[in-house]
Amino acid sequence: MNQINHLFNNDLHAVNLGLESFTVGLQDTGAAVQHVNWQPPAGGDVELGRKLVHLLYDASMQQRIDAANSLAMERMLSAHPAWVGVSTAKEAIGLKSNQFLHAGPPIPYEKMCGPMQGAAVGAVLFENLATTPEEARALLESGGIEFAPCHHYHAVGPMAGIISPSMPVFLIRNQSGGNLAYTNINEGLGKVLRFGAYDEEVLTRLKWIRDVLAPTLALVVTEKDPIDIRAISAKALHMGDEGHNRNAAASALLFKVLTGRLLVSGLTQKQIADVLRFIDANDHFYLNLSMAASKAVLDTASGIEDCTVITTMARNGVEFGVRMSATGDTWFTAPAEYPKGLYFPGYSEKDAAPDLGDSSITETAGIGGFAMAAAPAIIGFVGGSSQDALKTTREMYKITLRRNMNYSLPAMDFDGVPIGIDALKVVDSGIAPVINTGIAHKNAGVGQVGAGIVRAPMACFIQAIKQYLSGFGKEVEK
Amino acid sequence: MNQINHLFNNDLHAVNLGLESFTVGLQDTGAAVQHVNWQPPAGGDVELGRKLVHLLYDASMQQRIDAANSLAMERMLSAHPAWVGVSTAKEAIGLKSNQFLHAGPPIPYEKMCGPMQGAAVGAVLFENLATTPEEARALLESGGIEFAPCHHYHAVGPMAGIISPSMPVFLIRNQSGGNLAYTNINEGLGKVLRFGAYDEEVLTRLKWIRDVLAPTLALVVTEKDPIDIRAISAKALHMGDEGHNRNAAASALLFKVLTGRLLVSGLTQKQIADVLRFIDANDHFYLNLSMAASKAVLDTASGIEDCTVITTMARNGVEFGVRMSATGDTWFTAPAEYPKGLYFPGYSEKDAAPDLGDSSITETAGIGGFAMAAAPAIIGFVGGSSQDALKTTREMYKITLRRNMNYSLPAMDFDGVPIGIDALKVVDSGIAPVINTGIAHKNAGVGQVGAGIVRAPMACFIQAIKQYLSGFGKEVEK
Repeated sequence: MNQINHLFNNDLHAVNLGLESFTVGLQDTGAAVQHVNWQPPAGGDVELGRKLVHLLYDASMQQRIDAANSLAMERMLSAHPAWVGVSTAKEAIGLKSNQFLHAGPPIPYEKMCGPMQGAAVGAVLFENLATTPEEARALLESGGIEFAPCHHYHAVGPMAGIISPSMPVFLIRNQSGGNLAYTNINEGLGKVLRFGAYDEEVLTRLKWIRDVLAPTLALVVTEKDPIDIRAISAKALHMGDEGHNRNAAASALLFKVLTGRLLVSGLTQKQIADVLRFIDANDHFYLNLSMAASKAVLDTASGIEDCTVITTMARNGVEFGVRMSATGDTWFTAPAEYPKGLYFPGYSEKDAAPDLGDSSITETAGIGGFAMAAAPAIIGFVGGSSQDALKTTREMYKITLRRNMNYSLPAMDFDGVPIGIDALKVVDSGIAPVINTGIAHKNAGVGQVGAGIVRAPMACFIQAIKQYLSGFGKEVEK
Repeated sequence: MNQINHLFNNDLHAVNLGLESFTVGLQDTGAAVQHVNWQPPAGGDVELGRKLVHLLYDASMQQRIDAANSLAMERMLSAHPAWVGVSTAKEAIGLKSNQFLHAGPPIPYEKMCGPMQGAAVGAVLFENLATTPEEARALLESGGIEFAPCHHYHAVGPMAGIISPSMPVFLIRNQSGGNLAYTNINEGLGKVLRFGAYDEEVLTRLKWIRDVLAPTLALVVTEKDPIDIRAISAKALHMGDEGHNRNAAASALLFKVLTGRLLVSGLTQKQIADVLRFIDANDHFYLNLSMAASKAVLDTASGIEDCTVITTMARNGVEFGVRMSATGDTWFTAPAEYPKGLYFPGYSEKDAAPDLGDSSITETAGIGGFAMAAAPAIIGFVGGSSQDALKTTREMYKITLRRNMNYSLPAMDFDGVPIGIDALKVVDSGIAPVINTGIAHKNAGVGQVGAGIVRAPMACFIQAIKQYLSGFGKEVEK
């Protein structure tokens, strides 16, 4: 008791680990306190923590992991994505007539969220597999459509991410590795398929994209005359974009390139004007290219033995799914969370669908939320300050392996974006990857209701590392 | 001696005023020292300082000044510049056939710097007033051309700023006040008239600008269908531009608007392609519009009795000139300084011309160097850090009257740019306005050799305030 009194009769100089609320309590009493933003490693799982310590202090195993991760980073940092053409999902990806792709990890139709089911209905109508929404739903409920994640076919799609066979796709080639990635075409804002809308306006626009926009772009973007997406993204990161929730600069830069090409294409002025007007009206036209470029970068790192680099983060509106290099095509999933953000007038959190879409591929490749320092203009969505934007990027350095100097950040004195999420670092530090995202209405057909940020669920990374450690077998158990 | 020893035997906690070098010396010895960035008011002029104190502590005079300055700020903050047309200097400004305008305060031909003389030679050739550079020089030396500052005709021109009668000009109207401002058309980089070049390539380009570009733009930019420059500048400040040394975003946004209009103009595809290719190739195409918009804003504040707002800062390559609202058209000049910055490969400070051009009108209107926080990408020109960009903007708050919420800064949590340079605040604080600028070669015809920053000479502001105080007569002398 004397010792307790001694303690409380002296000026306190405290260090607080973990819960920040204790810091506030101490500060209120006037005590000097230093908060350390600490969380128990391995999400507090003692058994996993024990194994992690083994792994992190075993020099020979560390060497194996470092070598594997270095190889992954070498491939990702030298990747050079370019837009090389326009095709259809049937042609380029090889989709069968009754096969649709969707965003995120695998999910059957009956378990999909509202916006994804709505987009599937729209795609059935678009493919002329039904003539009314009711017929379309009946077809979908009877299992008449075979679903697979976009990611199983080197493809990505924002929000619902529904890609059906006759939809046009952009082809993105990693010019240094040769691998291809695919994405659908951004429809703009308002009532659009990717948010689950499927009325006449949506279908008419999709048909115009298929019949006018895609063939026009196919004329001016080819393997012989590609558009350098890495270069445009690099410039855009100096112009307030982060490549996920803000694509105004990249869309404008792309507009300039396309205008130059279209004006010497031999097309009529009306055709050119129609196509450019559509692109001009959508500051997110570039988003799908940013996503497919990220996919082309990350596919180079997939399936490397011992490699703990995260190669996919994607959401289907029900589950968040993660894939890691060493464990290849295996998905590690957890329930999708609700983004925190700013809602459009008339909407609130209770209208939101859980986190949705493949667009988190941008964060997986080191842009989007990871490049928040490039885009202080979007921090307003989450009520933060411009300094918080820098803090977010700095925090992501702690869970990544390299700084990507191809994409530099003026506000960080031209340091590179954090790239190469290391699942071991995530689990060890308790820091989950940050993701900037649009927010969809939970019901099909309403559309976007806001934008904000969300964290990838820690549980996905813990599962990945558990499976990874089991692969090391006795080496870790010893 | 005992007291001295006492001093040096204790830990020093020093406050250092003025010269920062003393701080470094103390820090080196391990002493705790707080530097205060202080300079003697009124540039150390005791007599002026005395009068300033009188003025600053006289409530009734302060009331008069505040009322005058508030009126100026009300007009500047409500100004809404738009691009409303294209004409010629003869038509719009009323230039006579032997009359040229130039950048900065008044200067006769024989005293002009190399680049400005070169540009004058080029303009004589362009106007067909001579057929060889030698003839042109002879005409100029004989006084055959009448010169006046652009600023005397509501006009502004970057670098040499030579505007001759048949040159096309853009018309910028302040849509809330009705006043017009004029500027010539940006020629792009490399060998260009504004840097004093006048060879065949330069003249051919100027003729193309006159015969093709200007008439084309005149078709699509009219009083009936203006382009909102305030809106484009506001967007561009969220996209890494500061509106003086960086105009990449604004130029891209303007490109999109012009493309949309040209494609429905009825012009041939070749005409449209030629014009857009020229604009696309120049990330500073927007600079002249940014300048003329600034001029249209500042002209609303000119000639207000008692008003200490700076309405002009401009350089002719020999002198830096400043004008203040209350003293109307009177120029207060001092020798132009040499910008500090980054030189292009092969050039150094000894190649530089002194500070040149009307482009400092952007800083006078609160953008350019004053909006450095918007454009961390350009701080590299002066070897600073991204935090220095924020510091520069914060420093300019100290010598300005308002924050312009029409132009907000994401990196400053959407605070407005500092606007309304108060000559009293400049002289009282000893803080000179900062200016971002291109650097011209000192010889005619070489072109741009670098970019950097410079400070407006304090002597200009001291002269302005001296004349201002003399106007108050006995009131200040009492």
